[in-house]
Amino acid sequence: MHSYILELKCSRCGRKYDANVVQSVCTSCGGTLFSMYDIEKAKNKFAKQDLQKRTPSLWRYREMLPVKIEKNIVTLGEGYTPITRIERIGEKLGLKQLYVKDDGIIPTGTFKTRGMTTAISKVKELGISKVALASAGNAGGAAATYSARAGIECFVFMPKDAPESTKKECYEMGAHVYLVDGLINDAGKFVVNGKQKYGWFELSTLKEPYRVEGKKTMGYEIAEQFDWILPDVIVYPTGGGTGLVGMWKAFNELQELGWLDRENKKPRMVSVQSKGCAPVVKAFKEGKESVEEPFKDAQTIAGGIRVPSPYASEQILKVIRASQGTAVEVDDSEIIQSMQTLGKQEGLNVCPEGAATLAGLGKLIDNGWLEKNERVLLYNTGSGLKYPEVVNLPKLKVFSKEVAYSFEL
Amino acid sequence: MHSYILELKCSRCGRKYDANVVQSVCTSCGGTLFSMYDIEKAKNKFAKQDLQKRTPSLWRYREMLPVKIEKNIVTLGEGYTPITRIERIGEKLGLKQLYVKDDGIIPTGTFKTRGMTTAISKVKELGISKVALASAGNAGGAAATYSARAGIECFVFMPKDAPESTKKECYEMGAHVYLVDGLINDAGKFVVNGKQKYGWFELSTLKEPYRVEGKKTMGYEIAEQFDWILPDVIVYPTGGGTGLVGMWKAFNELQELGWLDRENKKPRMVSVQSKGCAPVVKAFKEGKESVEEPFKDAQTIAGGIRVPSPYASEQILKVIRASQGTAVEVDDSEIIQSMQTLGKQEGLNVCPEGAATLAGLGKLIDNGWLEKNERVLLYNTGSGLKYPEVVNLPKLKVFSKEVAYSFEL
Repeated sequence: MHSYILELKCSRCGRKYDANVVQSVCTSCGGTLFSMYDIEKAKNKFAKQDLQKRTPSLWRYREMLPVKIEKNIVTLGEGYTPITRIERIGEKLGLKQLYVKDDGIIPTGTFKTRGMTTAISKVKELGISKVALASAGNAGGAAATYSARAGIECFVFMPKDAPESTKKECYEMGAHVYLVDGLINDAGKFVVNGKQKYGWFELSTLKEPYRVEGKKTMGYEIAEQFDWILPDVIVYPTGGGTGLVGMWKAFNELQELGWLDRENKKPRMVSVQSKGCAPVVKAFKEGKESVEEPFKDAQTIAGGIRVPSPYASEQILKVIRASQGTAVEVDDSEIIQSMQTLGKQEGLNVCPEGAATLAGLGKLIDNGWLEKNERVLLYNTGSGLKYPEVVNLPKLKVFSKEVAYSFEL
Repeated sequence: MHSYILELKCSRCGRKYDANVVQSVCTSCGGTLFSMYDIEKAKNKFAKQDLQKRTPSLWRYREMLPVKIEKNIVTLGEGYTPITRIERIGEKLGLKQLYVKDDGIIPTGTFKTRGMTTAISKVKELGISKVALASAGNAGGAAATYSARAGIECFVFMPKDAPESTKKECYEMGAHVYLVDGLINDAGKFVVNGKQKYGWFELSTLKEPYRVEGKKTMGYEIAEQFDWILPDVIVYPTGGGTGLVGMWKAFNELQELGWLDRENKKPRMVSVQSKGCAPVVKAFKEGKESVEEPFKDAQTIAGGIRVPSPYASEQILKVIRASQGTAVEVDDSEIIQSMQTLGKQEGLNVCPEGAATLAGLGKLIDNGWLEKNERVLLYNTGSGLKYPEVVNLPKLKVFSKEVAYSFEL
């Protein structure tokens, strides 16, 4: 088994780069570099049946991932996360085929793991020893985790109001953690500085070529788990958008490989954002090709989608339009209500970003955008367990042990 | 596909019970009831090769699980958790083949899920509508989760000092949560009372037959993931001990099925407990057949193994001795250090109970109980993410965004 990676190619201007040496973004236009594979060759030697005997991890697709030598793979058994049918909620909404892909069931508890297992593996393969990134929390935790596993030094810069759980995660995994009195873009400046001063490799979103390759596996898994017939609609919470862009890349690669059912169209991709930070929704509605200016006063309880100016907005908007998808915004109160609905109705403990997809789905049904018999997949990007601060536990009564046998409801 | 369950049998006195009606414990002697299968029949119709195409969840072994009708399975895609080799730590300890089975990567974040997916499924199959249990936290969270998924009403009684994360989990999943000013056995009295008054089905540890069947899948998975050659030693954190007893049941069933390599012996089973609550270690050393009196002033940061008087102590001690295993105790400070070692050296974010196994392993090496070339598996029972209170985050310095470009390490 080996990787069919050929080279890197700028996703914006098309310029090509050597995949065997360290690269960050396109030196001509600043675009994100995508990994290109020799799919013609892969087609003849790599069959979807080969997957059957493999471990249920995202590395089962390693022919289509950028790591060349198996021993460089830095893994904790991540990926191939469950897809759960939610019939009870589906019935209430009048949908016959409603599913949740649950990336809460993965090391570090969020989908950020996907990007970090591939990026850190490639970092190891390229002989890099120090990495750094700016993170709102979860990406930092995943970078720290996979760096620890690889024996690589990791520097994480976080806004000081990042969730406590992710600060602890970084610390426990031995990363160097620095808090910044500002937003994620302010934290990013520390990374730029340190990169120059100390030679760190920057792992921030879409500033290197390999996190998107890990995110791409979301698309491979969805295809395989639905037996190579893609759903009609995928609803995805959009912050940096690497997942959306990555899934689309996967679907294209799968078509080229000839693995998808021939009649099967690619899904319509729906971006969900919070009203408090909806730059993609705004740009989509206005017919813009990119997010031209940062969304003002960005605020939402779903920290993972509080990205006022996504670096890949051009790519995100292209995917939404190419797929005949759409973009919708939801209230924070709808997000909290959807978390509760998914918990109480289906036993799914999702993160606020994941819950946003159910809230967004409501809008799509209300405005008739969806057919009731379509197969719809909601993407949950992380476990609710990482967001204790979002749950307001009411004061619970404490009972004396003396009243055990006289207790009444 | 169907279940080969035949009947229930008391694990102590051998009395048999009908598996098609609601049962709790043996009405003669109070022993836990075990599910018995028609293995002779299964042998001819169920082959380990059948597993290859199945979903990576513990329900892949459903012929050997008690649920008869597939639509009664209450699942969130749980199980078939990763086994991760820890070479860096292994090398330091002089062990060539050291692994961690990571049950942190599962819905609810702990191994309690295994028992609850099977028990709640069977509860559904038997037409029960209300369940109750006493729990130190994680079992309550898992019961609440699977009850929500099944549409069953769930009553959880917890000591008031149960972890905040598990209280929130129960609440989010729609369970009725009651706090008790006392220990888990005090909470248990409320369940006994409510059972009589309100007809609840009791799900407390080993008070019903089906949680152990879910825990048993730990053994099936270990066997399959190691290609049907069992490890030499399994180190397991022992509280209630259902997992230990369940794995042993699995290994016996697998032998009967003829699925294990013929030369392969069953593993030596090692119980690890905390010095602050080590009733099994004490009984083992004293040559006792059971824990005769509760361990006094039980106290440890590893709440899951704070069980002063395990209901199944007889079974636990039998398994340890039958397997030529042993029992060791560790300090809480060693547990915390092991958590850090697993995080910083291997990127594994484990719970205190899981970390205890690494601390225990140190003792086994120190006293020469282990051969250096033996294959050893440590069992991590949950994610460290559920135990934020165990991590003492030092006060991190906050940097002004103005100093980004002048920042130095």
